[in-house]
Amino acid sequence: MTLYFEDFAVGDTRELGGRTVSEAEIVAFGRQFDPQPFHIDPEAASRSPFGGLIASGWHTAALAMRMVVDELLPPGSGSLGSPGVDELRWHHPVRPGDTLRVRTEVVETVPSRSKPDRGLVKLRYRVLNQRDEEVMSLIGMGLFRRRSALTAAP
Amino acid sequence: MTLYFEDFAVGDTRELGGRTVSEAEIVAFGRQFDPQPFHIDPEAASRSPFGGLIASGWHTAALAMRMVVDELLPPGSGSLGSPGVDELRWHHPVRPGDTLRVRTEVVETVPSRSKPDRGLVKLRYRVLNQRDEEVMSLIGMGLFRRRSALTAAP
Repeated sequence: MTLYFEDFAVGDTRELGGRTVSEAEIVAFGRQFDPQPFHIDPEAASRSPFGGLIASGWHTAALAMRMVVDELLPPGSGSLGSPGVDELRWHHPVRPGDTLRVRTEVVETVPSRSKPDRGLVKLRYRVLNQRDEEVMSLIGMGLFRRRSALTAAP
Repeated sequence: MTLYFEDFAVGDTRELGGRTVSEAEIVAFGRQFDPQPFHIDPEAASRSPFGGLIASGWHTAALAMRMVVDELLPPGSGSLGSPGVDELRWHHPVRPGDTLRVRTEVVETVPSRSKPDRGLVKLRYRVLNQRDEEVMSLIGMGLFRRRSALTAAP
């Protein structure tokens, strides 16, 4: 399945993933990128305000990206990268053993004025755990090739 | 150096880091979290609109976090985590061999009304490469303990 700009319509929703996160993964990511005690040290984390080890918010974001890439942006997809993200919020801790999935909703589609071969898609992502608690949300922007630009190629 | 809420004043700036990113790191992060061809396959990346391998934007964000943790949030710091981030933008590709640093500026400080032991600090982060090109920016929110709450403890 290759998605182009034309394949996104405002209001479309999808549910992706189902990815369980282990303590070892949380600690490995934390040690590499976010070595605060509550991300890397179960003992210190138990005495923190979080009451136990929690994933770095950037780890949760990266795991969500992986689920999106696997299901929406496979090799050969129309993705041209992303200019950025708005309203990234970490609502609830992600703990070892949690299983995450991503609900996406298309909130806006904007054909490029300067580059007629592409358009911008704004997607709201909600990351949920196995208890349907929303752990993270964001509005992501993605640039996608237009299918019409393919057929117009010489 | 342990930073508490009182240690942040609007307008304060800091410059952190100086971290060179290798091709192997870019590919390793991409394979794990963002396996789009231009993040994991130098050959395919050279034929992409980016003209070569580039780091996942989430990798750049994670590297910036590491620089911030190392210099602003050491173990025992007053950090109580983050509710989120606004206006995350990827301005310019990060390529193998780039050296990144982070400029932070305090843009707002808000004592908590409901929890007098803490306050919210909003920091603008600009991530620059060795040519002073801004590769990423964001406004991060951080919760910090108040030093005054420490002395008031029973």
